[in-house]
Amino acid sequence: MLRIPFAEVVSCLTAILTRLGFDAERARRCAQLFAEASRDGVYSHGVERFPRFLETIRNGLVDVAASAVSVRRFGALEGWDGRRGAGNLNAEAAMDRAIELSREYGLGCVALANTNHWMRGGSYGWQAAEAGVIGICWTNTLPNLPPWGATEAAVGNNPLVIAVPRPGGHVVLDMAMSQFSYGALATHRLAGKELPVEGGFDAEGHLTRDPAAIEASGRPLPIGYWKGSGLALVLDMMAALLSGGLATHQIPHDILRESGQSQVFLAFSFQALQPGQDAAAIADAIVDSLLSAGAEVRYPGQRVLQTRAENLALGIPIRAELWRELTQASVNK
Amino acid sequence: MLRIPFAEVVSCLTAILTRLGFDAERARRCAQLFAEASRDGVYSHGVERFPRFLETIRNGLVDVAASAVSVRRFGALEGWDGRRGAGNLNAEAAMDRAIELSREYGLGCVALANTNHWMRGGSYGWQAAEAGVIGICWTNTLPNLPPWGATEAAVGNNPLVIAVPRPGGHVVLDMAMSQFSYGALATHRLAGKELPVEGGFDAEGHLTRDPAAIEASGRPLPIGYWKGSGLALVLDMMAALLSGGLATHQIPHDILRESGQSQVFLAFSFQALQPGQDAAAIADAIVDSLLSAGAEVRYPGQRVLQTRAENLALGIPIRAELWRELTQASVNK
Repeated sequence: MLRIPFAEVVSCLTAILTRLGFDAERARRCAQLFAEASRDGVYSHGVERFPRFLETIRNGLVDVAASAVSVRRFGALEGWDGRRGAGNLNAEAAMDRAIELSREYGLGCVALANTNHWMRGGSYGWQAAEAGVIGICWTNTLPNLPPWGATEAAVGNNPLVIAVPRPGGHVVLDMAMSQFSYGALATHRLAGKELPVEGGFDAEGHLTRDPAAIEASGRPLPIGYWKGSGLALVLDMMAALLSGGLATHQIPHDILRESGQSQVFLAFSFQALQPGQDAAAIADAIVDSLLSAGAEVRYPGQRVLQTRAENLALGIPIRAELWRELTQASVNK
Repeated sequence: MLRIPFAEVVSCLTAILTRLGFDAERARRCAQLFAEASRDGVYSHGVERFPRFLETIRNGLVDVAASAVSVRRFGALEGWDGRRGAGNLNAEAAMDRAIELSREYGLGCVALANTNHWMRGGSYGWQAAEAGVIGICWTNTLPNLPPWGATEAAVGNNPLVIAVPRPGGHVVLDMAMSQFSYGALATHRLAGKELPVEGGFDAEGHLTRDPAAIEASGRPLPIGYWKGSGLALVLDMMAALLSGGLATHQIPHDILRESGQSQVFLAFSFQALQPGQDAAAIADAIVDSLLSAGAEVRYPGQRVLQTRAENLALGIPIRAELWRELTQASVNK
């Protein structure tokens, strides 16, 4: 594993995206979002994921020239068309607008149709928290999770992000509706490890901690069994009804052709509503009361700051072969 | 178990509440919310819970004369003071106002401080769905759930409700952040049954399906382990920061003195944003695609309509001893 300085990663990815037709500013922002995911330790949706993103440009799923636009509005609620542009740029623009609406109305919502995979969902939570507002966002996905009671995938794992600003470290929850992603199952299998808790069913329909058995059955577990299954459903319904876009069952059932997701972005300007409130003290007291429950307790987002500091100091960890591939692509025609 | 006609239940509870000092209209609405919970099969928070509600009036936690009032506003976001009034009436009024705000702004939010237990959370989801809007609401609670990594309760089970209108049957998710409530643990224990999945830790710190072992350890499991634990935290932070009210760690750590909860009510007028959309067809297609995944698959809220029809036809199931107690209280001075 190499350690590449953050700025060098950004300029390498920017150069590749510029060659592929992104205009300069959008290439830089898109590259930065990928680099930031790796910087924050979310390697699966950072630089490691970049080659697959390039593939979706080459195969026409992602249109480099398209940016998301507002197509309808009612008060603090807007409907946007992502025009099949880059998913992370679309999502960032949608959250920006939700934040702007919250400054005017106290809260704002952008429902985005017709977009692409947003990569690291937490990005848009951190974005809201950095702007000093509470952010909530979620996306639907292709059907990749059997609902409770079924053996075949029929709901998405629909990641949900909730971010609460806190000067001492934002609290950012970024969770999919499956207990473990397929990536996490593979990681455990390759390391020869059992899952820490039951993660799905084996081929005989028994709950198991064996990652390979779950990969083979295609039956990962929704968080909280019937509860996560229900939550995945209502998040999908809200995303489709608010945005006018596709629901999970309409998204191609093929991870290489997944496109046209619907997403929802919400921002709450709680400081505008409660101007005299010492929000930092309230947030600190809640986090402190959580952490005091045990030495092993963490709040969502806690480990990010430590990883970020380490990766900024030492460089972003990138596989040597991947970095060679990317640096070549940044200079080749 | 007796079967009492719905109208008779409402008038009995109304009479009791009127004697306790509620004005006529509020007594009727409060009684109706309790009766509706039982009508819909949520017996734990319906008539069965009514005697404990009366106790909170007698011991001064609930002020019969107090109704919730708006104390601050910024656009579509309002802060309300529940003034320690009846929790179900406060919650209903808050959701009503969120719905009203959504008609004007596309979405609306009421953050309610200083209230009391809202009883059946699903009530306010059904309320939003009946009004044709998407509703989201949640409440914080006393600390009753150990966060992931801890043995002592430090987060609330913070029930979350998400309701999506659907002419063929609203989809209403009503879920606490604990996998099983203490009520559910007791029910399984008394029936001599194991839980269907692991529900918490035993005294040795092992995951178990034995309800008595979990009751003894005081360590029920958050849904999705670390995920539900994180979700409980951010819901509490949002409720406290938006409402200016108490966070979980500030609510009395005693189920008999639990009071002063903070709650959030959101409504989304998706029909105002997407006026030409055939929302019923979209919602039906999503639900149909879920149900077609297996004969045992249910959508959240599905069983309610069947139970409701049965209980309206046959009468509300009420324990004979409880009904005798209530009918006496409705005529005694």
